[in-house]
Amino acid sequence: MSSYLIDCLQYANWSEKIFRQMREGGVDAVHVTIAYHEDFRETVRNIADWNLRFQRHSDLIMQGFTGDDVRRARETGRTAIFFGFQTPAPIEADIGLVEVLHRLGARFMQLTYNNQSLLATGCYEAEDPGLTRMGRQVVAEMNRVGLVVDMSHSSERSTLDAIEHSARPIAITHANPASWHPARRNKSDTVLRALAESGGMLGFSVYPHHLKGGSACTLDDFCTMIARTAELMGVERIGIGTDLCQDQPDSVVEWMRAYRWTRQIDYGEGSADAAGFPDQPEWFADNRGLRGIAAGLRRVGFSEPETDRILGGNWLDFFDQSFGPQA
Amino acid sequence: MSSYLIDCLQYANWSEKIFRQMREGGVDAVHVTIAYHEDFRETVRNIADWNLRFQRHSDLIMQGFTGDDVRRARETGRTAIFFGFQTPAPIEADIGLVEVLHRLGARFMQLTYNNQSLLATGCYEAEDPGLTRMGRQVVAEMNRVGLVVDMSHSSERSTLDAIEHSARPIAITHANPASWHPARRNKSDTVLRALAESGGMLGFSVYPHHLKGGSACTLDDFCTMIARTAELMGVERIGIGTDLCQDQPDSVVEWMRAYRWTRQIDYGEGSADAAGFPDQPEWFADNRGLRGIAAGLRRVGFSEPETDRILGGNWLDFFDQSFGPQA
Repeated sequence: MSSYLIDCLQYANWSEKIFRQMREGGVDAVHVTIAYHEDFRETVRNIADWNLRFQRHSDLIMQGFTGDDVRRARETGRTAIFFGFQTPAPIEADIGLVEVLHRLGARFMQLTYNNQSLLATGCYEAEDPGLTRMGRQVVAEMNRVGLVVDMSHSSERSTLDAIEHSARPIAITHANPASWHPARRNKSDTVLRALAESGGMLGFSVYPHHLKGGSACTLDDFCTMIARTAELMGVERIGIGTDLCQDQPDSVVEWMRAYRWTRQIDYGEGSADAAGFPDQPEWFADNRGLRGIAAGLRRVGFSEPETDRILGGNWLDFFDQSFGPQA
Repeated sequence: MSSYLIDCLQYANWSEKIFRQMREGGVDAVHVTIAYHEDFRETVRNIADWNLRFQRHSDLIMQGFTGDDVRRARETGRTAIFFGFQTPAPIEADIGLVEVLHRLGARFMQLTYNNQSLLATGCYEAEDPGLTRMGRQVVAEMNRVGLVVDMSHSSERSTLDAIEHSARPIAITHANPASWHPARRNKSDTVLRALAESGGMLGFSVYPHHLKGGSACTLDDFCTMIARTAELMGVERIGIGTDLCQDQPDSVVEWMRAYRWTRQIDYGEGSADAAGFPDQPEWFADNRGLRGIAAGLRRVGFSEPETDRILGGNWLDFFDQSFGPQA
């Protein structure tokens, strides 16, 4: 087995059990969310928690800083863990924290999460003014140091602005085409086309709210959607970003959505009668299900080299190009 | 002398000298900025610094929480100091801090300062989407506890949105009409009319960048502008908010403008060849100049009761109505 297996977004309730499942599933690298609403200090605490996991489970996982770390993880039978943020809260209002957090290992940062941030607009706002003054400055700084702009939860114009303004390709680590399933979090063909043309990457999400049919979506439906998206974007611009939130209690999704910006309940992608985490599709309950997507991709017509690209090769190329200083 | 003298915005480099000038000038109350870019913890530190000033200079100043504290200050020969923020940074991303900071004495909070915030848009952004999702929630919470929405540095639509969305009258504590001097920080007649119709207040600024003719603007020019604005808004909806930044070094205005949102220099209202604080008009160098505005107002035709309203009576009414819990 020479192909790489990379999941470009998970936010699990991390445990030795999950790290063992990563190894059982042959997963070479995972981009893990280490901060949603955490400020700088809280993010550093989460990093310290990860440092402890790297020490305790050094036989299973290692921190990833570069694409080569994925290769090193493979050679040593481990999974490389790359840090990312789902909001820009960790940099607070301080552009100087971009470089500091990159040095600590941050490799992806979303400019917004559902709501307006200091940098750009989230997909739940009524208006979408695009990148702000600070947003343009921060994107340039992220480009400089090698922190990838992630627009998974951003709104249409802000995403197009980020693609255009960023000097380096950006990522949408976990979302699907809105033309397949018109969830607010999924992306228009206009965005996906612009993303592909700029050399960016889309990671397909397995989070049920992003799937046509929700938890009942079949592997074949999912892979057929991937095939259609490959026609739009090209097979080199797509990968996997499952958005797996394994073993998390529902209090976590409530916190993700409402944090402390409102004194009311915000159901986000859910609703009053379905407020918690949705059930995973039966074909993807944990990291052991990733390799199974390969069979689905072959069934809908992808060649073996194409399947390898989608399951990890494209992300590895992107990691190689994106995580170092700007050329 | 029965009329009250209230300045609804100063940000000086506070000292006993300045407190003595407040007393010499007969100033009964000042809304002081205690935070620009400070987060919650830093704001609390600034409050602790003020607590020390209240203790050390208890013969000159006292903290103000209500309109009655202005009366109490008058009776005891002191100046009442009311706290305000020029950005929403002190509440961070946490709506729960609105009530906490109100309890500590915060009475005004700007929703934005030049740039996009989590709540609304500042006057230097290219786009102006208005109040955000969080902005609407926070305005409702400010209304509930009695923290006044201040839109001095906000852009047009965001200001109109705040006026409309706020259940209680808002303030523009320090700005002038753009029809008089078209600075980005000054306000359109549309905004001023909506502000007046909603029962809000405008404080006229003496900061030279907001004045026609800048530092050379005469007292009569200034008072003629006030007379014209009184025709637009009504004499009950206007007061003074000088924006006096006495004894501050230029490093402070650089920090106000650029803070840490950019790695470049931002000149804000200034320019590369005039980057620092501008010189004050000769008729208003410090708190002793406030009473002199009365003579100017009488010269342009205001009656004595009208002059009393503009110099403090209107703000006192507004304080009485605004600082307690929502009825």
